[in-house]
Amino acid sequence: MNSQQNETLTRTGPGTEMGDLFRRYWIPALLATELPEPDCPPVRVGLLSEKLLAFRDTDGKIGLIGEFCAHRGVSLWFGRNEEHGIRCPYHGWKYDVNGQCVEVPSEANTGYCDKIKLTSYPCVEMGGIIWTYMGPPDKQPPLPAFEWVELPDSHRYLSKRFQECNYLQAMEGGIDSSHVSFLHRGELDTDPLHRNTQGAKYARSTNTVFDILESPGGLVIGARRDAEPGVNYWRLTQWIMPWYTLIPPYGGGHALNGHAWVPIDDNNCIAWTMTFHPQRPLSADELSAMESGRGVHCELIPGTFRPVANRDNDYLMDRAGQKSGRYYSGIKGLAIQDASLQESMGPIADRTRENLVSTDNAILMARQRLLKAARGLTGDKPLPGIDRAHQQQRSASFLLEVNGNFREKAADATLVRPGEAHVAV
Amino acid sequence: MNSQQNETLTRTGPGTEMGDLFRRYWIPALLATELPEPDCPPVRVGLLSEKLLAFRDTDGKIGLIGEFCAHRGVSLWFGRNEEHGIRCPYHGWKYDVNGQCVEVPSEANTGYCDKIKLTSYPCVEMGGIIWTYMGPPDKQPPLPAFEWVELPDSHRYLSKRFQECNYLQAMEGGIDSSHVSFLHRGELDTDPLHRNTQGAKYARSTNTVFDILESPGGLVIGARRDAEPGVNYWRLTQWIMPWYTLIPPYGGGHALNGHAWVPIDDNNCIAWTMTFHPQRPLSADELSAMESGRGVHCELIPGTFRPVANRDNDYLMDRAGQKSGRYYSGIKGLAIQDASLQESMGPIADRTRENLVSTDNAILMARQRLLKAARGLTGDKPLPGIDRAHQQQRSASFLLEVNGNFREKAADATLVRPGEAHVAV
Amino acid sequence: MNSQQNETLTRTGPGTEMGDLFRRYWIPALLATELPEPDCPPVRVGLLSEKLLAFRDTDGKIGLIGEFCAHRGVSLWFGRNEEHGIRCPYHGWKYDVNGQCVEVPSEANTGYCDKIKLTSYPCVEMGGIIWTYMGPPDKQPPLPAFEWVELPDSHRYLSKRFQECNYLQAMEGGIDSSHVSFLHRGELDTDPLHRNTQGAKYARSTNTVFDILESPGGLVIGARRDAEPGVNYWRLTQWIMPWYTLIPPYGGGHALNGHAWVPIDDNNCIAWTMTFHPQRPLSADELSAMESGRGVHCELIPGTFRPVANRDNDYLMDRAGQKSGRYYSGIKGLAIQDASLQESMGPIADRTRENLVSTDNAILMARQRLLKAARGLTGDKPLPGIDRAHQQQRSASFLLEVNGNFREKAADATLVRPGEAHVAV
Repeated sequence: MNSQQNETLTRTGPGTEMGDLFRRYWIPALLATELPEPDCPPVRVGLLSEKLLAFRDTDGKIGLIGEFCAHRGVSLWFGRNEEHGIRCPYHGWKYDVNGQCVEVPSEANTGYCDKIKLTSYPCVEMGGIIWTYMGPPDKQPPLPAFEWVELPDSHRYLSKRFQECNYLQAMEGGIDSSHVSFLHRGELDTDPLHRNTQGAKYARSTNTVFDILESPGGLVIGARRDAEPGVNYWRLTQWIMPWYTLIPPYGGGHALNGHAWVPIDDNNCIAWTMTFHPQRPLSADELSAMESGRGVHCELIPGTFRPVANRDNDYLMDRAGQKSGRYYSGIKGLAIQDASLQESMGPIADRTRENLVSTDNAILMARQRLLKAARGLTGDKPLPGIDRAHQQQRSASFLLEVNGNFREKAADATLVRPGEAHVAV
Repeated sequence: MNSQQNETLTRTGPGTEMGDLFRRYWIPALLATELPEPDCPPVRVGLLSEKLLAFRDTDGKIGLIGEFCAHRGVSLWFGRNEEHGIRCPYHGWKYDVNGQCVEVPSEANTGYCDKIKLTSYPCVEMGGIIWTYMGPPDKQPPLPAFEWVELPDSHRYLSKRFQECNYLQAMEGGIDSSHVSFLHRGELDTDPLHRNTQGAKYARSTNTVFDILESPGGLVIGARRDAEPGVNYWRLTQWIMPWYTLIPPYGGGHALNGHAWVPIDDNNCIAWTMTFHPQRPLSADELSAMESGRGVHCELIPGTFRPVANRDNDYLMDRAGQKSGRYYSGIKGLAIQDASLQESMGPIADRTRENLVSTDNAILMARQRLLKAARGLTGDKPLPGIDRAHQQQRSASFLLEVNGNFREKAADATLVRPGEAHVAV
Repeated sequence: MNSQQNETLTRTGPGTEMGDLFRRYWIPALLATELPEPDCPPVRVGLLSEKLLAFRDTDGKIGLIGEFCAHRGVSLWFGRNEEHGIRCPYHGWKYDVNGQCVEVPSEANTGYCDKIKLTSYPCVEMGGIIWTYMGPPDKQPPLPAFEWVELPDSHRYLSKRFQECNYLQAMEGGIDSSHVSFLHRGELDTDPLHRNTQGAKYARSTNTVFDILESPGGLVIGARRDAEPGVNYWRLTQWIMPWYTLIPPYGGGHALNGHAWVPIDDNNCIAWTMTFHPQRPLSADELSAMESGRGVHCELIPGTFRPVANRDNDYLMDRAGQKSGRYYSGIKGLAIQDASLQESMGPIADRTRENLVSTDNAILMARQRLLKAARGLTGDKPLPGIDRAHQQQRSASFLLEVNGNFREKAADATLVRPGEAHVAV
């Protein structure tokens, strides 16, 4: 990649090419639990280099508006969330969930407040997430329809963590299915949500060959490893545009895992993590493990979304654990293993210096799809990843004879079948 | 305001328009207690983007000189304050309170040291403050003559705190008399130095109308609220150039409060706070309350002037206290309520995006006076705020019949009458 | 100096004049103890604005290679040091001590890895230090041959500390022999490695006259003080290019001390400190004192090379100790006394504003030698400081009659005589 392409792919503020593209999708903005009840404290939200404030009003309606009061620019985070609006504590200016100013006490009964309106973006609460749409109103797409969004709450666990680098190098980690055999191999033996499966055994093989299928909404990334003589072990990762990835399952009993990689600004992102089972509630053991940071979740500094293990403490590097092989890189936990390496690339990875190989094809294809979609914004074609059909996809893992029909099997295995378990070995 | 005007008003370093203006006034540089005795430790002082060092010499004379040794540039903060001068610990170069180098040991008896002189500014200690003058020597104005400076020490309490934003948005908070009905309304009931007065009851009304009088030294900002039928409650705030504000009193028994907003550099300032009673010593209860951060003072991190509640800890936001109305914005204490909002505007507020209303007229007028004074520097007219008469002003609060003569009453109520109490409801 | 000269002298990154010069010498990169055994944890090393990774492989060979994997740029600090190479934990790329990629698992048996090579610099372990050479291979100089390098380990103690400023102002402190009479005078009475010598008594005199001799490798800086009537006390500091200084001894029984001032980047350096006795092992008392930060060593934050006393805590300023004279500047310990002042000059001292005097001649001459050497890089002459003869030098202190032959005495006293004690009073 040249420097210009790297800039294009990594800049997402207002008026950038990628920023314009991402503003055409529904965006995960907050966990619903961050706004637990009407008139609860407002929350600062950074999205695509915009500084916003989220609040839930007296009726339970959600507002996502510009963070700063239109009067003299103080942060409404200090505001009072009361009686159907957020009130600036400096002079009492009040805004509703649409960013409309509904009261300027000093100019009461003059109609002045009608002329004052903050930036605001529509929100919808679905699947435990508050989603927003930051694009042109006439281009608003259908609501999110991912399988994990539509499941009952009992079938799903969500977390998010702050990651100190550009969204793209984080997302590329999610697209890259080959690193599991290296970076995460310790966890294939030990993590309560991954160990003791046939898949975990096969996935240790580093001899990975890829077969990548373009899908309407992104890519289905097939990674083939030797299983038994004459039989291959296939892992199918989903990348659904613009930034969703689904990790192939390690065993039939295990839940599925996925991510969304959402820019806060160009140097920081949120790694959303969802764990779900299409067929059953998550068990108490599973929930307990995830709450303590196991699986693809991680332990957070209380009251924040920053991981306990972070760049300021060298991610709690454990060299003895590295030496023993317990943690392949010496870092504990799948999520922080990824985060540590991705952050070590610098705030924005310099893609002009990389040396990509065959296992990076999915990353290359994803970059091309993003650039192509950005260039195609002015056309009439629906954007990839926008439709229900694009989103109703599963990751999968399966065994297939060496001469089996991979494409046919993949098409079948990645279908969402409500009420039926996912395909997994 | 356009961007150029905002720059002009907020930049105060050497050679800037506002910097040249401010250098024509006596400037509060340190609390006298920061240099408690002869030959005590020197203190680093930042003023108008200059880095200075203050010390009190063996005779008790005060020096305010360039921080760095003329020899090789090390900070004289590490220097030895001894025998009528501060001695650089690197090679023993010694400077007197005028910044004159009086000894270079390696060049003894050569007269070399006579040619070495650091920047130095004259200082005077008055009213518990060490003041300095940083302008052209031939333009040095008369000494400060504010009422609170001339009172006995027993009648006055001083504090200062570091604020992490430009001086102007801080000072505008001091000029803005209308925000008390919102931001500070909790304290009108609870603060030991404000509660239980008739004025505090009236000041809760948010229906404020302004009548602003130009004074020779600045502005007298009258804020009118309804009191009883046919009677108005007036609060008169003083703005005395270049950066002094006096808060109207809440009750006759209460002391008066004021501020000075002094730039350290363009992104930081000192909020000086003075509490004084024209007629009597401050009581033990008052002093105790202020020392523990009540009134318009605040609790500081020991050994520093940084508030305990600051931007790094979200000012110790108390959402339950906000919900109950105990603290209107959830932030505790009048000083930090102001600081939190003013710092949330960013290091330098972007005044091109504000939407000013009728209650902001005093702010607009103050900006115009500052710009006008800066433009008038080359003329012969005395600068506003420079003369004793400009400074001998009080804030006031009073009741006045609806048809009463406000200007006459204001002129009388704001007069300093030594030994007589201020006008207050 | 003008601004351009200051830039030339202080910038040492790739492609700079001084950077090109320094890359022609062997450079102290790490303490040998930082890589204590084969396959131990790798260490991040910053040198001349390059980010490198040091490791010791299975055979004990040392690698110093580019920190970031050639594949997608993650830090190899997270790598696994195993089986003759460091393996990136992301996808298993493996590099040997020469930076040669020896395995790319996804491209096994394709020869791909042969084409991948990271920056690498040859290393040699001598005298308790891992040295590297970062210049053109055909210009590699002979190995370091300083006396302290060639002594038995028992005769030498090494430490290093992180200093938060440019190397040059730090090194100038090492060249400047006159400041000991001021900054360090407290330690001449109290430090266990300096006190109770005749030299320490004489060195308190601030009446210092310099006689500086050009040597093939740098400068021999003679500082003359009055001793007894008709007799001078001489202290001879060595500056050996590019960045070594040797402190004159205070007494015959005492060990010698020296420094190397090595740039990490333009705003930070490592102050290497070596203490050694040419004739005998260091005693248990000496070692114990140095390990607790006495002499010219200092106490470090465990697990780091950052001093406990640093700019974030005002170097633990002790004003009472300053007043009593116990610590001349109030800062404890010779090393931190130097570091505190040098860091107070700013990241890069502004040499356009200094006022140099006679005692600064050695500093001026050293700057000229550095500039001249940088300009002479393209010629055929051997660089100063590169040859064994340039490096085999001692510092010294001695008494000499007022009419004695200083040059003859100096030439003799600075000779390295293996097995014989250094010349010291």
